[in-house]
Amino acid sequence: MSTNLVEHKHKVTKEDRQNLLKQKSPVIWLTGLSGSGKSTIANELAIKLQQEGKLAYILDGDNVRMGLNKDLGFSDNDRKENIRRIAEVAKLISDTGVIVITAFISPFREERKNAKEIIGKDNFIEVFVRTSLETCEKRDPKGLYKKARTGEIPMFTGIDSPYEEPLNYDIMVSGDIDSDQYESTKFLYDSLIERNIFKL
Amino acid sequence: MSTNLVEHKHKVTKEDRQNLLKQKSPVIWLTGLSGSGKSTIANELAIKLQQEGKLAYILDGDNVRMGLNKDLGFSDNDRKENIRRIAEVAKLISDTGVIVITAFISPFREERKNAKEIIGKDNFIEVFVRTSLETCEKRDPKGLYKKARTGEIPMFTGIDSPYEEPLNYDIMVSGDIDSDQYESTKFLYDSLIERNIFKL
Repeated sequence: MSTNLVEHKHKVTKEDRQNLLKQKSPVIWLTGLSGSGKSTIANELAIKLQQEGKLAYILDGDNVRMGLNKDLGFSDNDRKENIRRIAEVAKLISDTGVIVITAFISPFREERKNAKEIIGKDNFIEVFVRTSLETCEKRDPKGLYKKARTGEIPMFTGIDSPYEEPLNYDIMVSGDIDSDQYESTKFLYDSLIERNIFKL
Repeated sequence: MSTNLVEHKHKVTKEDRQNLLKQKSPVIWLTGLSGSGKSTIANELAIKLQQEGKLAYILDGDNVRMGLNKDLGFSDNDRKENIRRIAEVAKLISDTGVIVITAFISPFREERKNAKEIIGKDNFIEVFVRTSLETCEKRDPKGLYKKARTGEIPMFTGIDSPYEEPLNYDIMVSGDIDSDQYESTKFLYDSLIERNIFKL
């Protein structure tokens, strides 16, 4: 017995943990403008998964910006580092066996590509939450667009910093109409199930 | 229905996830010298928990230094940032409902105190893996002590950088004799169970 102990032979693997949970644990990467509905859809998806007995976790500004990434600002380098760390943490959580749902604007193709490389392409589902800038700006749940328009927030995505729409997303959902977000989540959930994304 | 969606009312909570897993999800923070047996004990504990149907995950140099913290070196600031990020990630994983076992030397009282503050004192179990320097150096599984003695690795804990023994640990286990590490893990597991650490 002691020999095995020293040799670290019987490590618990990702597969063991997924078997315990009876699920695969991909990273569902939501990308879209501020106000596009990412957080709403992420939360609705998490509720649906929980109801189905699946363990999922949302990474978003609420639990990342105030903690792990609180040392980062909004310079180009810091934004890049922000997404890198999120991708690394998503990878770790996915490794625990838990399904990860990320809800970050992640406006640049290059950073989403980097995230996909870190997480692994077979484990990364890119979901484009497609909502017109007009809708997002009208909605403006945090008053950020208003501040961006007056110059109070510089380099705001969609205003004076670009949002590079995904060209090769896995799934696209519409976030344009508030009351459709339940339908959008249902569409997203059904698409994920159809592709056996969570099936061992 | 759409009103609730917009208001984000029905978020899935940590308690919901713990209920799904039928376990609490504390952070078991192992501290001790290089070669003290932290990784062995962490792995044995993870195996035992998995066998009992509990979901646990190890954070250690293998999955953190090469990924999330690969931008960090060994300066005082970088070591501090290393532990800060580990504590933040441990907190996130604990929030998913998964039991976290960390295996890092974490030699300074101040950094362990910071980790405890980040994670929350009621969620943090400090485990001192107490092994004599002589044993660790004799064992030297990665040849690091040898390099430290020749000056090839500067500021090595136990040689030319201090290891501040925990004064207020929750549990102490001995890592001095190789063949005792199974017994040490059993003692650790039993102590955790006795204290209802994983019980909802």
